[in-house]
Amino acid sequence: MLKLKNIGIDTYRDTVAFLARDCSLYRPEEFQAFKKIDVISGDKHLLATLMIVDNKSIINADELGLSEQAFKRMGLTEGTPVTIAPAEPPTSLDHLKRKIHGHTLEPRQIEEIIGDVANHLYSEMEIAAFLVSCAGFMTTDEVLAMTKAMAFAGNQLQWNAPIVVDKHCIGGIPGNRTSMIIVPIVAAHGLLIPKTSSRAITSPAGTADTMEVLAKVDLSMHEMQSVVETCKGCIVWGGHVNLSPADDILISVERPLGIDTREQMVASIMSKKLAAGSTHLLIDIPVGSSAKVHNSAGDAMRLRKLFEYVGSETGLHVDVVITDGQQPIGNGIGPVLEARDVMAVLRNEYGAPKDLREKSLQIAGSLLEADPALRGGSGYARAQQLLDSGAALSTMEQIINAQGRNTTPFCVGELTHEILAPIDGVIDAIDCYHLARIARLAGAPLDKGAGIDLFKKVGDTVTKGEPLYRIHACFQTDYGFTTKFADEGSGYGIRSKI
Amino acid sequence: MLKLKNIGIDTYRDTVAFLARDCSLYRPEEFQAFKKIDVISGDKHLLATLMIVDNKSIINADELGLSEQAFKRMGLTEGTPVTIAPAEPPTSLDHLKRKIHGHTLEPRQIEEIIGDVANHLYSEMEIAAFLVSCAGFMTTDEVLAMTKAMAFAGNQLQWNAPIVVDKHCIGGIPGNRTSMIIVPIVAAHGLLIPKTSSRAITSPAGTADTMEVLAKVDLSMHEMQSVVETCKGCIVWGGHVNLSPADDILISVERPLGIDTREQMVASIMSKKLAAGSTHLLIDIPVGSSAKVHNSAGDAMRLRKLFEYVGSETGLHVDVVITDGQQPIGNGIGPVLEARDVMAVLRNEYGAPKDLREKSLQIAGSLLEADPALRGGSGYARAQQLLDSGAALSTMEQIINAQGRNTTPFCVGELTHEILAPIDGVIDAIDCYHLARIARLAGAPLDKGAGIDLFKKVGDTVTKGEPLYRIHACFQTDYGFTTKFADEGSGYGIRSKI
Repeated sequence: MLKLKNIGIDTYRDTVAFLARDCSLYRPEEFQAFKKIDVISGDKHLLATLMIVDNKSIINADELGLSEQAFKRMGLTEGTPVTIAPAEPPTSLDHLKRKIHGHTLEPRQIEEIIGDVANHLYSEMEIAAFLVSCAGFMTTDEVLAMTKAMAFAGNQLQWNAPIVVDKHCIGGIPGNRTSMIIVPIVAAHGLLIPKTSSRAITSPAGTADTMEVLAKVDLSMHEMQSVVETCKGCIVWGGHVNLSPADDILISVERPLGIDTREQMVASIMSKKLAAGSTHLLIDIPVGSSAKVHNSAGDAMRLRKLFEYVGSETGLHVDVVITDGQQPIGNGIGPVLEARDVMAVLRNEYGAPKDLREKSLQIAGSLLEADPALRGGSGYARAQQLLDSGAALSTMEQIINAQGRNTTPFCVGELTHEILAPIDGVIDAIDCYHLARIARLAGAPLDKGAGIDLFKKVGDTVTKGEPLYRIHACFQTDYGFTTKFADEGSGYGIRSKI
Repeated sequence: MLKLKNIGIDTYRDTVAFLARDCSLYRPEEFQAFKKIDVISGDKHLLATLMIVDNKSIINADELGLSEQAFKRMGLTEGTPVTIAPAEPPTSLDHLKRKIHGHTLEPRQIEEIIGDVANHLYSEMEIAAFLVSCAGFMTTDEVLAMTKAMAFAGNQLQWNAPIVVDKHCIGGIPGNRTSMIIVPIVAAHGLLIPKTSSRAITSPAGTADTMEVLAKVDLSMHEMQSVVETCKGCIVWGGHVNLSPADDILISVERPLGIDTREQMVASIMSKKLAAGSTHLLIDIPVGSSAKVHNSAGDAMRLRKLFEYVGSETGLHVDVVITDGQQPIGNGIGPVLEARDVMAVLRNEYGAPKDLREKSLQIAGSLLEADPALRGGSGYARAQQLLDSGAALSTMEQIINAQGRNTTPFCVGELTHEILAPIDGVIDAIDCYHLARIARLAGAPLDKGAGIDLFKKVGDTVTKGEPLYRIHACFQTDYGFTTKFADEGSGYGIRSKI
């Protein structure tokens, strides 16, 4: 048998095993052709990609090396005896092959695939094949089966309350941090709103990244439940709560391939919300030329109908609102700058971004309508009252304390560069995608203080040489990449005056 | 700048770069999210996946490590100063995204994608996405554009002869080594037949693996041309000749995903043959329940038509023959055992496999009909004459010498195990796929002598306890895996006598 070793290499999403070329027990070349090997110790199994090591200082002939991720997943100590075998491909690959060749799958076949994805048995190549074949054609029943399979493939939260509200925004709009205002408003009213959020994958900040500026967000399921018991609401990262883990894996392949079909979007969001134990869900679909959904008449409506269908078949009450997605919401893009905007709105500060306040009130008001004790149509006014009175702010402070206040002061990146208006005119358009890219290059979300501070929004008048926005970066190399990129294209469209 | 280092890890198909977690110049975590980095030295670029190293004995803070494959592709010495940058995704990914979402692509868009695939700019995930979207729907014009793009993305051979013949078999039939008999017959007649063959990917032997038992097969383009000048024919591995390199890359993803659509098959084969400078091509489509094509009336005919269409649009004369694919051809499966069968036929030995001889004569005869000097319908008789007279054998010896005779004696694997008939009866069916899997587990093609020797074919009578076939393996671990697998299912169907 071989002795287990942690090689000390971080292979990101891949699970990798290493064998010496002159391995004393197996011929590694033979296994490499199989693409995956099964690492076995007692009844523990781990599927891993094999790499062969010619450098004798990395691994000995009687050892089996694992990457850091693989070692952690295997959960054994170094030196534990292990054997290997060619990996049996998961049987659900047969269903995948049928789907690739145009067949429709049964619910239990989709369940098998999703279960194997959640258990890390699929390679990125196989996941891509599944997603692209689904993007080609998927029946409504397949979407429903996929949603349920994903929801039940991880943890499921249960709440001791008749109404549990939640909201979700079909991303793509930088700075759109309404959740951090809506949660304290709704919780201050007394409805349960246990919000799990994502970290950024390709965007400059997810709600979890921004909330982390203020408080600890990587709570366990039990810690989260205790926060919600005390405060009625929370804003935590979903990663440790393990709701619909298959969704996170699918998303990691969907993003780089630009797959954002209606079907995937609905299955992804609804599975997370079902697992979270929500009863009432509000979906925000921003529509704009650089948002995910481009036109409200056709695309947004078809998306709405699919949400409503899956909601009604799974017993989750769904409301969909179409919002303005033509430009970023608020002024800051990047965790620290966005957190600044959120707190300014909660504190009713002079100069707090009006668009962020207004949109948060709209959605919070709509969520409050789920409360049978409230008179129909009075949700918005109630939300406004809770915000203006400071009740929402005090609930937010409670939530921050309960999750664990971040005591290290946050500050914006000190390397700054302003992008100036090239002509006199009126701001005509702002490309959300382009600005997100700039903020990302500047270091967000890894550097909390990196990002963009917007000075002008659509409709504003500018004179030549006036700053449109300021880039903040923390490191010289990032600063270089970013300013070069932004100087080549600002992302702002300006209509010259006549 | 960082200093280049060869890490000494064989990462198979992946191009991998390694940075120390405490890298002195960059923050590796930031780059890992981009999935690929661009390694730069002067005007040399290499796209690589990034892994982060926490083990200080593997790499220093001022070094950039490359896997063996990446180091070779970069082509620089250790210590060369390099920089890195986030990789710009290839612009052809935009076309891919359109294809995923159901659009039809223009020829130049397909060209761009294929060019980027050939230049190793696509990840396996992206290749899978392209292949699955093509499997979903592809117009005939897209197939044609893809064929041409693939043919022109690598080397192109040119021959100083009006007629250049070639043949290709739609795989799946173990032991089917007709090429090694057809080439010497056709070359002995005087027609040019420069044959490039593949090595096995998922099968127990490719023609290149089997020919390698007799002679060197990894010839360069120039060495191949010189062999053909002398002998009129050759049987070499296509890998060094670099014909349609994109095809090899696509195949490495098609196989594990089980993608074998008509469209992919035609583009793959026709691109190789166009690049090889053929004028006349014979396609052999074996039909059988465990072959790639299951029924001759529908599937095989539609495949034939697509071959003929692409042939006529690219000026390559194509003939398609449908053959019997219900069982292996010849007795041996695995390089040494197949080479034994081939030489037995060429030497007109008593007991040489009749099916292999007959099929080779049929195809060679059909190819000879391309010669205008030959009277129509006399091809088969001419082929028979060249084989029976020993002319083909002597041409084969010439080809072996010209390519470089293998002087190390070959021998079959010494660990043997016989699978016995469980009942009296008549052989009803032989599962080609299952036997290939057994031969592969036994070590073929890596161990030339590993494989299966068949004693019974379809229609033969057996008595209980009589051996059906013998497994040969060279290593104890393989022997263990294989005998266990074959004892669980022999791959033979036997109809009991009444």
